[in-house]
Amino acid sequence: MFGAVIHAPGDVRYEERPDPTIVEPTDAVVRTVAACVCGSDLWRYRGISPVPRPTPIGHEFCGVVEAVGDAVTTVTVGDFVVGGFNPSDGTCPVCRKGAHANCLNGAHYDGAQAERIRIPWADGTLVATPEHPAEDQVPSILALSDVMCTGWHAAVSAGVGPGRSVAVVGDGAVGLCAVLASAQLGADAVIAMSRHEPRQRVAREFGATHVIAERGEDGAARVRELTEGIGADCVLECVGTEDARLQAVACVRDGGNIGLVGVPHGELPMNDLFWRNVGVKGGPAHCRAYLPHLLDLVLARTINPGLVFDLELPLAEVAEAYAAMDERRAIKSLLRPRSA
Amino acid sequence: MFGAVIHAPGDVRYEERPDPTIVEPTDAVVRTVAACVCGSDLWRYRGISPVPRPTPIGHEFCGVVEAVGDAVTTVTVGDFVVGGFNPSDGTCPVCRKGAHANCLNGAHYDGAQAERIRIPWADGTLVATPEHPAEDQVPSILALSDVMCTGWHAAVSAGVGPGRSVAVVGDGAVGLCAVLASAQLGADAVIAMSRHEPRQRVAREFGATHVIAERGEDGAARVRELTEGIGADCVLECVGTEDARLQAVACVRDGGNIGLVGVPHGELPMNDLFWRNVGVKGGPAHCRAYLPHLLDLVLARTINPGLVFDLELPLAEVAEAYAAMDERRAIKSLLRPRSA
Repeated sequence: MFGAVIHAPGDVRYEERPDPTIVEPTDAVVRTVAACVCGSDLWRYRGISPVPRPTPIGHEFCGVVEAVGDAVTTVTVGDFVVGGFNPSDGTCPVCRKGAHANCLNGAHYDGAQAERIRIPWADGTLVATPEHPAEDQVPSILALSDVMCTGWHAAVSAGVGPGRSVAVVGDGAVGLCAVLASAQLGADAVIAMSRHEPRQRVAREFGATHVIAERGEDGAARVRELTEGIGADCVLECVGTEDARLQAVACVRDGGNIGLVGVPHGELPMNDLFWRNVGVKGGPAHCRAYLPHLLDLVLARTINPGLVFDLELPLAEVAEAYAAMDERRAIKSLLRPRSA
Repeated sequence: MFGAVIHAPGDVRYEERPDPTIVEPTDAVVRTVAACVCGSDLWRYRGISPVPRPTPIGHEFCGVVEAVGDAVTTVTVGDFVVGGFNPSDGTCPVCRKGAHANCLNGAHYDGAQAERIRIPWADGTLVATPEHPAEDQVPSILALSDVMCTGWHAAVSAGVGPGRSVAVVGDGAVGLCAVLASAQLGADAVIAMSRHEPRQRVAREFGATHVIAERGEDGAARVRELTEGIGADCVLECVGTEDARLQAVACVRDGGNIGLVGVPHGELPMNDLFWRNVGVKGGPAHCRAYLPHLLDLVLARTINPGLVFDLELPLAEVAEAYAAMDERRAIKSLLRPRSA
């Protein structure tokens, strides 16, 4: 089969790789229907994270089960499935608490930007649709494998719900999904911070009640104007840079919460947040905990997170998918194998 | 009148001070029935925080209203009242969110270890009992002015509730109250970390299901033994030292929460907590938000936080009250003016 391999910063190639097989009895093999490029893949593409050797890349997918190990009971050959970016066994004490991202036996994919993918812990990772979905629902199902679960996680971590005002820092795919999650979770006001018109449009479609183009102290002042002068109850930090984290600190009200899902770069002023009674929670999303509910919402056409994909390419053109995101020509690139 | 004044580290004197008066129409003046010494008062007593000039000291009290300003409507002369350590106006947007500790118009007491106290924002700060309480309930009511609200705040901040396991770091008055709060909030397991037999006894009386004498990695290992090997859902950090904070980090499970109420000394490993999906929240307690419920529980004799007082002295002996706590001869000292 063929799949994406990162060789060095800026160098992602579509090349032949061994066909994945069932290694453990808890494995499945999935034939990819759609995959995509993650903002976090760009850390290596941009040379910020190291690429010590050529490595298969990608962790977002949906597809059709082609094989299952003897111990797999909840999905079967022919099922259309989606899985989160972080395989979980679903049975360890941490998974039983709903914290699947921190599964005691957590695993990784060996490159999901590929025609086929080996799925560790198939029962604890995959969720099957009742029937094969309509073609136009594939992007939204694919979005559940990372960005929608991650935006949802930001909102859940910050305690978003009815009666709450929310400000979302970051207008990438995760930030936009955090807007959608906040609206879906019943927030009263959802303030998207974005200065890019196409992203502002998606944010509004996703349920943003306000869109703010300002940043820094001006942005925080605009958030305060919309929140009785005190800042938002919940701020969702969906970038990870030091600027974004400090933007979140500036936008949250005393006694409020910051939900963090951006991979952290930079510190937080924790002593200041203590005196302000601001809570901080977040990390990698507990995808498998959220997938059943979010998949129901997608299949019922209640949410359409697939709108975050604004570029679709054949999987063979994965290099261009990276370049387009790196150069900010695309919010997020969807990839389809020829066979799909 | 007479009251306590700190002159320098180790030097707290009982001396004559001006009688407090109504300054603002929102003020009340309270005749003290009981006051006490806080662990946080010891920061100055021990020379860790500066004492730039002789300063009236103390922020915990209960007593009887002697005078009210023209704008005060919810308490009246003769009422028995308790107030939190941090006066709040009760009407600003932050107070309306329940975050009274961060009131936009927050104020301080001018020394509550005194025969009389001026109370700013009487309506937003004080809660009156339906009738004057039984003498034996005074210590528990007094405990609501800080340590019980603070222990409750630690538990609320960490999301303690039914189905949760809790570990409490710190066996001072606040830590013991955090045990009581956790039991009252319905936690399944409440693990008190204490190696002092008298404090262990209070912890058990307050509802601790387990008491652990070990500290450091041994203590964390004992917590894991009691929690399916993964650590507690909620850890309440009631000390503030770097050791205590790292103890909390070591005892919490991935995906769990740390409630912080110890005045922070030292950093938290926030990047590690991000990857572990551990939440951190806390700060000064929102006393006025908690007081009505906690006062009901005390008056119904459901909780008895007054057990944390193991030394009672006349207010005139306030210097000894400090010395006893500083030398760890007492968990917490209760003071009564002669007149009370």
